[in-house]
Amino acid sequence: MRLQAHDRHPELQAALDHLIVAGGKRVRPALVLLTGNMLGADHDRLITTAAAVEMLHTATLVHDDLIDGALLRRGNPTLNSHWSPAATVLTGDFIFARAAKLAANTDCLPLMKLFAETLAIIVNGELTQLFSSRGIANRENYDQRIYAKTASLFEMSARAAAMISPVEQVLVEIMQEFGRNIGMAFQILDDILDFTGEQESVGKPVGSDLLQGLVTLPTLYFIEKYPNDTNVAILLNGNFASEPKAMIELVQSIRSSECIKLALNDARSLVKAAISILKDMPAGEERQALEELARYIVDRKI
Amino acid sequence: MRLQAHDRHPELQAALDHLIVAGGKRVRPALVLLTGNMLGADHDRLITTAAAVEMLHTATLVHDDLIDGALLRRGNPTLNSHWSPAATVLTGDFIFARAAKLAANTDCLPLMKLFAETLAIIVNGELTQLFSSRGIANRENYDQRIYAKTASLFEMSARAAAMISPVEQVLVEIMQEFGRNIGMAFQILDDILDFTGEQESVGKPVGSDLLQGLVTLPTLYFIEKYPNDTNVAILLNGNFASEPKAMIELVQSIRSSECIKLALNDARSLVKAAISILKDMPAGEERQALEELARYIVDRKI
Repeated sequence: MRLQAHDRHPELQAALDHLIVAGGKRVRPALVLLTGNMLGADHDRLITTAAAVEMLHTATLVHDDLIDGALLRRGNPTLNSHWSPAATVLTGDFIFARAAKLAANTDCLPLMKLFAETLAIIVNGELTQLFSSRGIANRENYDQRIYAKTASLFEMSARAAAMISPVEQVLVEIMQEFGRNIGMAFQILDDILDFTGEQESVGKPVGSDLLQGLVTLPTLYFIEKYPNDTNVAILLNGNFASEPKAMIELVQSIRSSECIKLALNDARSLVKAAISILKDMPAGEERQALEELARYIVDRKI
Repeated sequence: MRLQAHDRHPELQAALDHLIVAGGKRVRPALVLLTGNMLGADHDRLITTAAAVEMLHTATLVHDDLIDGALLRRGNPTLNSHWSPAATVLTGDFIFARAAKLAANTDCLPLMKLFAETLAIIVNGELTQLFSSRGIANRENYDQRIYAKTASLFEMSARAAAMISPVEQVLVEIMQEFGRNIGMAFQILDDILDFTGEQESVGKPVGSDLLQGLVTLPTLYFIEKYPNDTNVAILLNGNFASEPKAMIELVQSIRSSECIKLALNDARSLVKAAISILKDMPAGEERQALEELARYIVDRKI
């Protein structure tokens, strides 16, 4: 990843260093590496694929933080917090270009197509969310949203690693399903942590999704259980923006309700399904490590 | 190109339709098609390559117009003139994704790598310009700038068309040189038209580059010929922003000087060099059409 800014403008190199050092959990490249190691992928191609995935993810974060006006990411200042919008847009574009170059360096055309298609899914999902009215309370809509936002890239990560491995097509499909399941679980847990996390560790106000009218899984369960709650009515009438006090109350109600547990059960079921899929994979410590990655996704606190 | 927004959010489809209908001169896809037809490329792959090139170009324009706050492009309202920055950034990203998908659909990995590398060159060039102080009067800097901004994509267009054609590597290199030459000429002519064009047809104030402290070829020649001009001194001291009247005077001086002719001679020499390169190519009406395209680039008025 660091090599990708070589020979470019010094400010751009500094920005990329900043983004790469800031780190993050590196869950997606871990998924690539563990899957590829389990299935016998060539080491260099696997590293290239993992770097391509993380670069693609980083590029989308740079543009997302600009769009959201976010000042912190992973506890570090975002690029847009100290750079102009122009420089931030272009840096995101540059990282897209380098991600595409890395993906092409795997010398695997289907992987390249998968990359481009996944980026289109992610961006189309964001645009759909941007143009949709808030306060949509519908499980199908929620599932589509978290697939586009998060699970599509997890799915791609596992699938890409299998594609460059010497395995049959059926294993590629199975690993894709594994990736999708843990990706859906990952986003559900993020949405739970938005309610239960401490402000310091989540890095934004507790319940920030709901304060912006964004209905996630805990809220969906709460609406189902308590359809007559006054604050639920305010949310569903689209008045979340004009009644922030009601939304703060609703966050507290959800936080102390059984709906957190219900959402967590859904995430755990997805991880369980993912782990049971792994039974068809070659046994050994690599498979064990993938199981641990899957479990970590629902056990993590931040 | 139109097919690339199929099955996406309606607002996104409408935006892509708007961008595609707005058109433009389509010089880059013309270069792809004429080169590929001359060299015997497969028809479908050639169309895909041409569409990929134009989509990549369109994506960079969407982000550029946002960055510059431009309200018109080719006489039509830009996306950012009626959409939020968020929607505009994401639409540009979506078009990048579709350009990458089209490039991958050519089933030619070296072409895919060339695409990603060219995007990195274009974006790095824009970032360099953003971070550089204005008023730089240096031919080497100018040549690097117009290569990154314009000629790199022309070079890629001609090279990509040759890459998917049944020809030897040496012809690929020759066509790349052809593309680079006419790309450099194209940008020099754009920079001349910024001085000589009528405001209505150029779509921005005459001399807009210089008013922003951007030194292009006519100005470089003027500085060389008239180093003691008062307004030149103001420009070179970096005071263009605080003395707009001086810059308007300088625009008029350059406009009525022989420096326009000198710059035009450079563009014509590049086109001549490009046409002489074509002598090594298969004769016929396709080669003839490429010659005409090259001549059009320095003869056009808008």
